[in-house]
Amino acid sequence: MPEDNVDKPNMATCTAPVNIAVIKYWGKRNEDLILPINSSLSVTLHQDQLKTTTTVASSRSFQEDRIWLNDKEEDISHPRLQSCLREIRRLARKRRSDGEPGVDMTALSHKVHICSVNNFPTAAGLASSAAGFACLVYTLARVFGVEGELSGIARQGSGSACRSMYGGFVQWIMGRREDGKDSLAQQVEPETHWPELRVLVLVASAERKPVGSTSGMQTSVQTSCLLKHRAESVVPGRMEEMIEAVRRKDFTTFAELTMKDSNQFHATCLDTYPPIFYLNNVSRQVIGLVHRYNRHYGETRVAYTFDAGPNAVIYTLQEHVAEFVQVVRHLFPPETNGGQFINGLPVNNAVLSEELKQAVSSEPIPKGISYIISTKAGPGPRVVDDPDQHLLGSDGFPKKSV
Amino acid sequence: MPEDNVDKPNMATCTAPVNIAVIKYWGKRNEDLILPINSSLSVTLHQDQLKTTTTVASSRSFQEDRIWLNDKEEDISHPRLQSCLREIRRLARKRRSDGEPGVDMTALSHKVHICSVNNFPTAAGLASSAAGFACLVYTLARVFGVEGELSGIARQGSGSACRSMYGGFVQWIMGRREDGKDSLAQQVEPETHWPELRVLVLVASAERKPVGSTSGMQTSVQTSCLLKHRAESVVPGRMEEMIEAVRRKDFTTFAELTMKDSNQFHATCLDTYPPIFYLNNVSRQVIGLVHRYNRHYGETRVAYTFDAGPNAVIYTLQEHVAEFVQVVRHLFPPETNGGQFINGLPVNNAVLSEELKQAVSSEPIPKGISYIISTKAGPGPRVVDDPDQHLLGSDGFPKKSV
Repeated sequence: MPEDNVDKPNMATCTAPVNIAVIKYWGKRNEDLILPINSSLSVTLHQDQLKTTTTVASSRSFQEDRIWLNDKEEDISHPRLQSCLREIRRLARKRRSDGEPGVDMTALSHKVHICSVNNFPTAAGLASSAAGFACLVYTLARVFGVEGELSGIARQGSGSACRSMYGGFVQWIMGRREDGKDSLAQQVEPETHWPELRVLVLVASAERKPVGSTSGMQTSVQTSCLLKHRAESVVPGRMEEMIEAVRRKDFTTFAELTMKDSNQFHATCLDTYPPIFYLNNVSRQVIGLVHRYNRHYGETRVAYTFDAGPNAVIYTLQEHVAEFVQVVRHLFPPETNGGQFINGLPVNNAVLSEELKQAVSSEPIPKGISYIISTKAGPGPRVVDDPDQHLLGSDGFPKKSV
Repeated sequence: MPEDNVDKPNMATCTAPVNIAVIKYWGKRNEDLILPINSSLSVTLHQDQLKTTTTVASSRSFQEDRIWLNDKEEDISHPRLQSCLREIRRLARKRRSDGEPGVDMTALSHKVHICSVNNFPTAAGLASSAAGFACLVYTLARVFGVEGELSGIARQGSGSACRSMYGGFVQWIMGRREDGKDSLAQQVEPETHWPELRVLVLVASAERKPVGSTSGMQTSVQTSCLLKHRAESVVPGRMEEMIEAVRRKDFTTFAELTMKDSNQFHATCLDTYPPIFYLNNVSRQVIGLVHRYNRHYGETRVAYTFDAGPNAVIYTLQEHVAEFVQVVRHLFPPETNGGQFINGLPVNNAVLSEELKQAVSSEPIPKGISYIISTKAGPGPRVVDDPDQHLLGSDGFPKKSV
């Protein structure tokens, strides 16, 4: 190794996906370890549309651990960041002491610089922490040369981040152990399993910032008697049904369970004291629209789900995408002269029949939906091989172009 | 009896109150008998502000049973009207065969004319069926000369009507019998018990007619797993707590339980499939306002509750009425040049401190609330002695002036 490379940082860049739960996670039984009160199941979205990119560099010349998120330096001392850093380093030490090859001996004592960006606006309200922590853990593991099960570490950054460690259809098994070692994500089916399944993110023009999910779920656990019942008596059965529906590619069951579980999650938010509202007027209109649309056809063609915010995520099959998007455009006339209304995977034009227009009609809400992201299920985290894509320069600091 | 009086109708006029539940009724275990899946508890509102007035006449000259509601003849064959008529006639026959005095022997074979009016607009969304059926049953009983327990008959007209048969604080005990004979209302405390308790009905400008409660609760019973849990495992404890809070005049417990139970009822509506939304944007703003107001004072001074519509009913103590009304006026600026904003019991003016304004501030919603009805707990149904108040003329038909 030439002398001038001694201080050159050890660097890796990876990407990780967003995931959208169809059986919702809401409520922790252990706040520090982030252990949930119920299992959950999600679809990993394709990174061509939505992803986090993270570069981690380690170098003996770095004075301290530092992190830049979306072009702004953030406080590395955040407990959840510290959990991830600590756990990856512990794993690396353990592997080294186990005599495993590939673990970078020197890096263990080195500080890291971390730089992370999303390819979607935070305003999209897409729970970017899941992709963010998944990407952080995946990239740290690369730099420290550790492999294998990492979802238990990602979970300690942000609960739902564990599900972003895998592609396709992923369950987070709640586990029973006090130490959380059995609270891990597991792939149910890969992203290639159900190619007809499509996802539309309807980004609602949010009125204001809702209650954060961390504090929201704390209050729910403390005050909602319905949440406890849901976690103990409803979700276990729904997990089994949902896994079966995914395996069989049974869209009707998948869609109905998805809608019911979204509604039940928001019901427990309303049963929280004081109550938490994540659905706004636009959300409720989307819900009504989906039910009217399905009723018109006498079959469940489209499903909605909402996380801790007003954006709808729509699951449907490829054959219905064009028409449903046109229906959305009909009821939520987009801003003219604004940006593109449809982003991501191309959507064909469709003409709505008068009967359909009649069936789904309601008071239009102009600009209620800012834009749509059209996407599908996708793979888990990926390593970016092209060194030009590193977000940190060879000096270990964010590139100017970032 | 002079000859010319033979055809003169036997006539009675009574009034009955509205009631507002603080432990909610939602879901029937028997649709025909209207037997609920849980007990409930309500406050009977004062008839000086809100009441139904009903005149019933019976005469051998009437060809058929007929009914006029709010100046419009309605179909008497409605099953629930028929239930009440049948049950009152059955009771009268039973009493006559038991040899009780006072039962009008002749009236039993006579047809009735019924005329009923509310002193509040139906648009106020105040579940007028409770007051309406209570008044109908109470007045029919008077005409047929029957007395005693009538809430079981009122219940068969509209479930919550049984609670309007008593004044003050009233529980509807769900009962266990298949034939419903033990599903009756019972006074917990009379209206004189807690004179400081005050009620404000905030009539929201409704966007559209929501799902009716009859079909809504049917769908909830069929589809919501949370409703079943609520009815079986949550409400029994809440009923005990609420009765105790009323007895002790413990406003904090009364208020918090009232809000939690309203929220839980609406949570079960959201857990219904397809979901039912009764709270609109104005409702949610009122909820937020009440919590911010209470937080500002560090005590629970005001409680909200919502039935199957967007109107808030506020429970508070006399000492807080003026200020809270001013806060409502501040956040929901009333229509200038419109009708009176405050109706009913007079409300003093109040000046809001800057700190309070700051604490409760949010985006004002002009005209979000049409008007306020200021009232309190009141007595049960009453007989109107003045024959000038009859809604039917001596010919047995609605008076022109009605």
